[in-house]
Amino acid sequence: MIGRLNHIAIAVPDLAVAVATYRDQLGAQVGAPQALPEHGVTVVFIDTGNTKVELLEPLGAGSPIAGFLEKNPAGGMHHICFEVPDIAAAVSRLVSGGARVLGDGQPRTGAHGNPVVFLHPKDFSGTLIELEQVRG
Amino acid sequence: MIGRLNHIAIAVPDLAVAVATYRDQLGAQVGAPQALPEHGVTVVFIDTGNTKVELLEPLGAGSPIAGFLEKNPAGGMHHICFEVPDIAAAVSRLVSGGARVLGDGQPRTGAHGNPVVFLHPKDFSGTLIELEQVRG
Repeated sequence: MIGRLNHIAIAVPDLAVAVATYRDQLGAQVGAPQALPEHGVTVVFIDTGNTKVELLEPLGAGSPIAGFLEKNPAGGMHHICFEVPDIAAAVSRLVSGGARVLGDGQPRTGAHGNPVVFLHPKDFSGTLIELEQVRG
Repeated sequence: MIGRLNHIAIAVPDLAVAVATYRDQLGAQVGAPQALPEHGVTVVFIDTGNTKVELLEPLGAGSPIAGFLEKNPAGGMHHICFEVPDIAAAVSRLVSGGARVLGDGQPRTGAHGNPVVFLHPKDFSGTLIELEQVRG
């Protein structure tokens, strides 16, 4: 069912510091910051050739990563995202198997414009997993 | 400097449970468990096509992931690994820039038989980063 690892997301308290670290110390290919107010984050994409690292900084009130940064003030790995070809089929299979989809269980439009869901970390060894529909 | 994301490592308290979850619920391509006593872990590789997820379970006394699992009993994302073409050059650049290499600062042979180092999470927005030398 799951395909490519689309990205790993890292929540950071200071995007400028994180960008400088990845660009100057690690020599990574770092993109420009993109404000995504509808998702409550500012994001920077790092292209590793085979996948992406996404650095996320909270944007505005009620950011979905604010709670994580309260618990992890230095930042840390927030979630991983796998691609699926059919998100409705994926959700159906997961729910049948007893896994919990966060929120109301319905796919929403993610930061890349594709339908996404998030799965409960308690059902996946403590890891927050995003599934993103990417058509073949 | 950094190239491909070689893998993301997830520490889990129960490898059999994690394997069943990834294989049966997520439909992932899950390999057989490999005991690596010299690294203090049993590992299962998940091939996502473009990169790997590595599930790690402690093996023996003094496992390097034992402390992490004490703090995160359900498991969680432990580290990410980037490939570099020349680990000595990478370490030299990082140390010159003020970043800290864990241990004695010298590369060791990692789980894939290549030289690796780990970088201090406090220097990288709370994320434990492994660098693995993979020749072109």
